[in-house]
Amino acid sequence: MQALQYREIGSRPELVEVEKPAPGPGEILLRVTAAGACHSDEFIMGTSAEDYYFKPLPLTLGHEVAGTVAELGAGVTGLEVGESVIVYGPWGCGRCYPCASGEEQNCEHGMRAPGIFSDGGMAEYMLVDDARHLVPIGDLDPVQNVSLTDAALTPYRAIKSALPKLTPGSTAVVIGSGGLGHVAIQLLKALTQTNVVVLDVAQDRLDFAREVGADAAFLSNPDAIDSVKELTRGLGAEAVFDFVGIQPTADLAAGMIRTGGQIVVVGVASGSVPIGQTTVPLDVTGRAINWGSRTELMEVVELAKRGAISIHVEQYSLADAPRAYDNLHAGKVRGRAVIVP
Amino acid sequence: MQALQYREIGSRPELVEVEKPAPGPGEILLRVTAAGACHSDEFIMGTSAEDYYFKPLPLTLGHEVAGTVAELGAGVTGLEVGESVIVYGPWGCGRCYPCASGEEQNCEHGMRAPGIFSDGGMAEYMLVDDARHLVPIGDLDPVQNVSLTDAALTPYRAIKSALPKLTPGSTAVVIGSGGLGHVAIQLLKALTQTNVVVLDVAQDRLDFAREVGADAAFLSNPDAIDSVKELTRGLGAEAVFDFVGIQPTADLAAGMIRTGGQIVVVGVASGSVPIGQTTVPLDVTGRAINWGSRTELMEVVELAKRGAISIHVEQYSLADAPRAYDNLHAGKVRGRAVIVP
Amino acid sequence: MQALQYREIGSRPELVEVEKPAPGPGEILLRVTAAGACHSDEFIMGTSAEDYYFKPLPLTLGHEVAGTVAELGAGVTGLEVGESVIVYGPWGCGRCYPCASGEEQNCEHGMRAPGIFSDGGMAEYMLVDDARHLVPIGDLDPVQNVSLTDAALTPYRAIKSALPKLTPGSTAVVIGSGGLGHVAIQLLKALTQTNVVVLDVAQDRLDFAREVGADAAFLSNPDAIDSVKELTRGLGAEAVFDFVGIQPTADLAAGMIRTGGQIVVVGVASGSVPIGQTTVPLDVTGRAINWGSRTELMEVVELAKRGAISIHVEQYSLADAPRAYDNLHAGKVRGRAVIVP
Amino acid sequence: MQALQYREIGSRPELVEVEKPAPGPGEILLRVTAAGACHSDEFIMGTSAEDYYFKPLPLTLGHEVAGTVAELGAGVTGLEVGESVIVYGPWGCGRCYPCASGEEQNCEHGMRAPGIFSDGGMAEYMLVDDARHLVPIGDLDPVQNVSLTDAALTPYRAIKSALPKLTPGSTAVVIGSGGLGHVAIQLLKALTQTNVVVLDVAQDRLDFAREVGADAAFLSNPDAIDSVKELTRGLGAEAVFDFVGIQPTADLAAGMIRTGGQIVVVGVASGSVPIGQTTVPLDVTGRAINWGSRTELMEVVELAKRGAISIHVEQYSLADAPRAYDNLHAGKVRGRAVIVP
Repeated sequence: MQALQYREIGSRPELVEVEKPAPGPGEILLRVTAAGACHSDEFIMGTSAEDYYFKPLPLTLGHEVAGTVAELGAGVTGLEVGESVIVYGPWGCGRCYPCASGEEQNCEHGMRAPGIFSDGGMAEYMLVDDARHLVPIGDLDPVQNVSLTDAALTPYRAIKSALPKLTPGSTAVVIGSGGLGHVAIQLLKALTQTNVVVLDVAQDRLDFAREVGADAAFLSNPDAIDSVKELTRGLGAEAVFDFVGIQPTADLAAGMIRTGGQIVVVGVASGSVPIGQTTVPLDVTGRAINWGSRTELMEVVELAKRGAISIHVEQYSLADAPRAYDNLHAGKVRGRAVIVP
Repeated sequence: MQALQYREIGSRPELVEVEKPAPGPGEILLRVTAAGACHSDEFIMGTSAEDYYFKPLPLTLGHEVAGTVAELGAGVTGLEVGESVIVYGPWGCGRCYPCASGEEQNCEHGMRAPGIFSDGGMAEYMLVDDARHLVPIGDLDPVQNVSLTDAALTPYRAIKSALPKLTPGSTAVVIGSGGLGHVAIQLLKALTQTNVVVLDVAQDRLDFAREVGADAAFLSNPDAIDSVKELTRGLGAEAVFDFVGIQPTADLAAGMIRTGGQIVVVGVASGSVPIGQTTVPLDVTGRAINWGSRTELMEVVELAKRGAISIHVEQYSLADAPRAYDNLHAGKVRGRAVIVP
Repeated sequence: MQALQYREIGSRPELVEVEKPAPGPGEILLRVTAAGACHSDEFIMGTSAEDYYFKPLPLTLGHEVAGTVAELGAGVTGLEVGESVIVYGPWGCGRCYPCASGEEQNCEHGMRAPGIFSDGGMAEYMLVDDARHLVPIGDLDPVQNVSLTDAALTPYRAIKSALPKLTPGSTAVVIGSGGLGHVAIQLLKALTQTNVVVLDVAQDRLDFAREVGADAAFLSNPDAIDSVKELTRGLGAEAVFDFVGIQPTADLAAGMIRTGGQIVVVGVASGSVPIGQTTVPLDVTGRAINWGSRTELMEVVELAKRGAISIHVEQYSLADAPRAYDNLHAGKVRGRAVIVP
Repeated sequence: MQALQYREIGSRPELVEVEKPAPGPGEILLRVTAAGACHSDEFIMGTSAEDYYFKPLPLTLGHEVAGTVAELGAGVTGLEVGESVIVYGPWGCGRCYPCASGEEQNCEHGMRAPGIFSDGGMAEYMLVDDARHLVPIGDLDPVQNVSLTDAALTPYRAIKSALPKLTPGSTAVVIGSGGLGHVAIQLLKALTQTNVVVLDVAQDRLDFAREVGADAAFLSNPDAIDSVKELTRGLGAEAVFDFVGIQPTADLAAGMIRTGGQIVVVGVASGSVPIGQTTVPLDVTGRAINWGSRTELMEVVELAKRGAISIHVEQYSLADAPRAYDNLHAGKVRGRAVIVP
């Protein structure tokens, strides 16, 4: 079968022919219906050989995966061949303390996420290790909804972690209106009565942010701090969600958060928010969120079923997948790039 | 009356004669029975003229205050002259959103804390702006318990904010076993079944930490990271409380926290924990805690009444107060220095 | 001045002439702009002499009050004469543990709510005991928004207490679409992605429920249990809010709640939900909610400012107020009856 | 092998010879080292034929089980033959919403708990359906600790659900100091700084309650309401845990709870707390708790490892098990009766 693989440090991903896998006991074989391309794939492919700690190469990319059940390994019950599902990506051991509460992204033994620490879904077929990692999506379109598994799940967790701050009439800032950010805007509108302010680097992205629900949108530069202060009686925002994660955006977050507020760093990059007594306003919380839990994915699927969120998708064939990454790299993707084998 | 004042940027505090204040409508005059000396006073006196944003000098020091009610202003009810009380320090406006929930330390109009933003309790008498800022302590000794108002309240809030992480058998690290840290150790023992590990810079301080309840104590240097990892199956601590707040301790905290853990920075200094996707383990929370709420102070008083916490006190007269600060500065105070007018 | 008073056990309220009050130290005199009529007033007037524990008669009714500041007592600051405000009704002592967290409705010394335990707002003027009990409403219309203080605040607290159960795609049942219930429906739509099912006793009330946002509406009889089960894969609702509070509605609630669900009894009547191991599904929570906190009222005002909730109002003059109660008693009020002096 | 079975409605349990089971794919065979006898077994055996909804008879009793791993079914990993474990009892499907968060006791498909809905551990061997239902206990003695799985887990969940009410200096009432109640007392002492008041029907049980940590103990009759009021400035208790569950104890709970307090009904009997606006103080919560989650069991094991809780055990052989139930029925068991095959 065909698979899109990252094969050599520093190279671009390539389409190659690999063997179709067979499910062992407890495993499930999926026929992939869609796989999302993510900035964190770019992060993996930008990691130097010294720092590389992901699956030894070659790595089949794709940690956002939808599929239909193709074959059940021995002992698997509760799933039907042909059923339409999406894959909960942060696979954990299932038995340690975090896994026992469904927070497999924090597994004590480390995640074995497909597309990152094991082969992923940018291929015709993919192996899933356990039935608990599949969530049925019924009639939802897999291409439109494959990215629920990360581009919606991750901002959902970020927003849930800050919900107590997001009281009616509060202000939330979303930095970056890309794959995750444009879903975050919709989630904030669906789940809160907060004012949603979006920062991004170009006017067309601000327009896009407004289209999906932003109440206000500013260019992402230091003037944005004053703009947010003006909207908040000089107090700053109750919450800032940084979907970029570089130092300039982290600094913006620290500059516009109010006393007692919460900053959530979502973007996988090398920036950081300095949490200390003299570096941010008093009582500020910072959090480096990571993906989400099993129940959070179920909740995100319900949101999609209700039409409360809708992911903007640019569709690519598997053959065209390298170009999807080129566009992603160039900041040219509006919403999410999805590969359809 | 006599008062200990910080009178000039960069100078040491002096004992001076000032006028005894009289309570206006709604105000209360306290006869001070005890006032605690705090590292944050040192922080104020170490602030340069450019950065100084506290009460314009002269400033009567003392934000930890106990007293007996000496005189009631017009319209004050619910208090008896002679009643023994401690002062809730972070005075807010009483009507904004944070104040309405008792979180006056986060008042939207800024705190007017005595000893910091208005004249404090290192004097024979002190004015209190409102009856709601006084908590009766009954038979508790004011000298032993004056520091409940900060040295216990602040770590109490820090620990409460991390309680969901401090499940039975978890590990909490306390960096710094001084005025606040030695109370934090007792609070952790009283309120959780977590393993309490203490880091400090000298052997006698580690001994002190063990005396007040630490399960383990290590010198505060980079080796401590390995020591904590060893105690935690290589995973790191569920929570780290940094009562020092300089960069080396913040770095220790970031180095020994586990995935999903929480770091609370309490010490007022210029260090900070870098919260980002590549700078701490995944899903880590950092928080720059600030003092505490009115109900948290009431809870702390109950803990003292039950004997669950006991503050180690070195007693000084008002005349001797400058020496108290010298000792504090030199790291020679064991527990808390308390001035008794 | 004129006031609507309940003067004798068992009688109907009467319009009488009383003296205009003058504000003492710390007090505020309001010129009343609107006062809401509530089913709990009916409860008070239906209480027998033996069980009567409210303000000794005569009692000026009206615990939902809006007004403009007419006069400030000595020492009151932070308010302007002429300012438009609504009254936080559940007045507590301000200093006990619940009051210190803004939960004055649970004051350890009992509420002194106007219109219930002291004279209320169905009059030309009303005394307010403390500035903290006034929330500015700016340009909001007082007649349309006076009932935020109870008809919105109480369901808001009820819903907040059940928010963790109201995950996306869950089902919430509202029993009774009257003064409080019709706001509850709007609150659920504004704050959650839950399916809102409404039960009431007449078709026109079900139509009204749908108008304000209900996803489904059924007649309030035992068949409704099956209807709710059908909508929830046989599992029952995650939350039921009973705004009636009689035994038949409490039994409906117990019959349609799912394992792990939450029932909130809001309606002031003599019914009750039997919480026990064999009387409701496992792990069910029941709660007899009471009014709300100061910050919850602030949040409700923000919701009104955003247009997220809108109270349906029938306006009556003070002279006509007895008729308002007659209509309320007869179940003929659509939304809330508001008296405008 | 030998097994203790409930074989006919209304009969007493009998020791019979049954076939030793063999583990299918994904299953584990345990050699039972200990099994606890519980009041809820009595509830099952006291249920009439019409109301009986448990496993069709015969039913091997025993839902508290410890064992060593005897044999692994195909595909089971992460467990060693010979490993000492206890069984998480409330087996759910593992994939529905509650199960995905580890709350398998609330499984949407119903629990398949061994000893209740499938054959249990009062036998030489027992089948376990999935490795996730086993928690290693290392060196803990299985006989002393088998009842962690229910007699500790259930009160632990009950207490966790009420923790926000159990602030320092608050008062918690435990009704019934038997198998679960005597662990609840220890849990409250280990995890809070609340005053623990115990009610029971005989002086020797009150003595036992004090031995395990109760601060006060009273006979369980209506006078106890006054005793609790006296200890709480007339306000009543912040939390009441009813481990009996009959109507008289439910009424006691309702009579001694304070405004805003929480009642948790744990005892499996037909009593119930009437939650309504006129039947309990305002803002009171009632909860009919059910067993516990997977992580809660892990936390309970940690508490036992630390020595924070210790279950009083009366040991019986399998042959003697019927007598254990007779003693339990007669209220003669001090702590927990444990059967050792």
